[in-house]
Amino acid sequence: MKILILSADGFEDMELFVPYYRFKEEGFDIDVASKKRGTIDGKHDYEIEANRSFDEINPEEYDMLFLPGGKAPSKVRKEDAALQIVRHFIDRNKPIVTICHGPQIMISAGVVQGRHMTCWPEVAKELKEAGAIYEDKEVVVDGNIVSSRMPDDLPYFLREAMRKTQVAISTPL
Amino acid sequence: MKILILSADGFEDMELFVPYYRFKEEGFDIDVASKKRGTIDGKHDYEIEANRSFDEINPEEYDMLFLPGGKAPSKVRKEDAALQIVRHFIDRNKPIVTICHGPQIMISAGVVQGRHMTCWPEVAKELKEAGAIYEDKEVVVDGNIVSSRMPDDLPYFLREAMRKTQVAISTPL
Repeated sequence: MKILILSADGFEDMELFVPYYRFKEEGFDIDVASKKRGTIDGKHDYEIEANRSFDEINPEEYDMLFLPGGKAPSKVRKEDAALQIVRHFIDRNKPIVTICHGPQIMISAGVVQGRHMTCWPEVAKELKEAGAIYEDKEVVVDGNIVSSRMPDDLPYFLREAMRKTQVAISTPL
Repeated sequence: MKILILSADGFEDMELFVPYYRFKEEGFDIDVASKKRGTIDGKHDYEIEANRSFDEINPEEYDMLFLPGGKAPSKVRKEDAALQIVRHFIDRNKPIVTICHGPQIMISAGVVQGRHMTCWPEVAKELKEAGAIYEDKEVVVDGNIVSSRMPDDLPYFLREAMRKTQVAISTPL
């Protein structure tokens, strides 16, 4: 199981690290990609090494995409290479799990039309305008997409994200 | 499964919240106790509600004790009611999982003699002087005690802590 995280400076620390450590607990491989390789900083002063840049990612190598929130998605959504990665997961029906502001990246990739999703409350308007069917719930699952609203939703998010990893393992893509 | 967390202001945010959300993912009940009820703040500005005070805890109600790190343990270790709770778990051989500075509370409770444990590097000297057998490893398991050193050890810590919850569920105490 190989998971790709797309992020940037200003990530929401819990939203990135809680799933990150959870996936590591399971022994999954994780790459963190940003515009450039190097350390990226969270809103709460935690940091993580982006060991890949967006443009060196071959999305074929990954089983699941994780888009955490915070201020990072507003940067990631401006990068064509990142949006191409998102479209690969949608085209191949591979799992995308996202929380908070993470869905902004999917909006910019043009992949939310007709999909049931949730997000940080302030992103809801934009998500609906992009054609998604917004639901104000701890976690929303629509096929390969799992979305949550905020750090307090993490237990629900983890439950459904882990379910997607099990499906991905049992049905190789 | 009911888990008790003992902490205070200055807790290490990831060390408290990563296991907290993990336990919630499993649907476990969690109480957070501090000297007084009310909000406690982490070093990185996350906060959590202490919904119990130490002196209103009946440790019989709990299956596992979790002692996260940061600066909080230096406060918790001064509270007799907290130390009594720790001794209950040792006396009854119920699981205690702890990370970073958390073992300081166990040192003050006088329960580490002869036990294999790890901790934050700067706590190692004190832990050894209290009679523990210190090991510089991601996670050390000695019977009912699971200990780790720092946030980066969380995946290893979670794996062993979760194993303890499974034992506690399958063999009611």
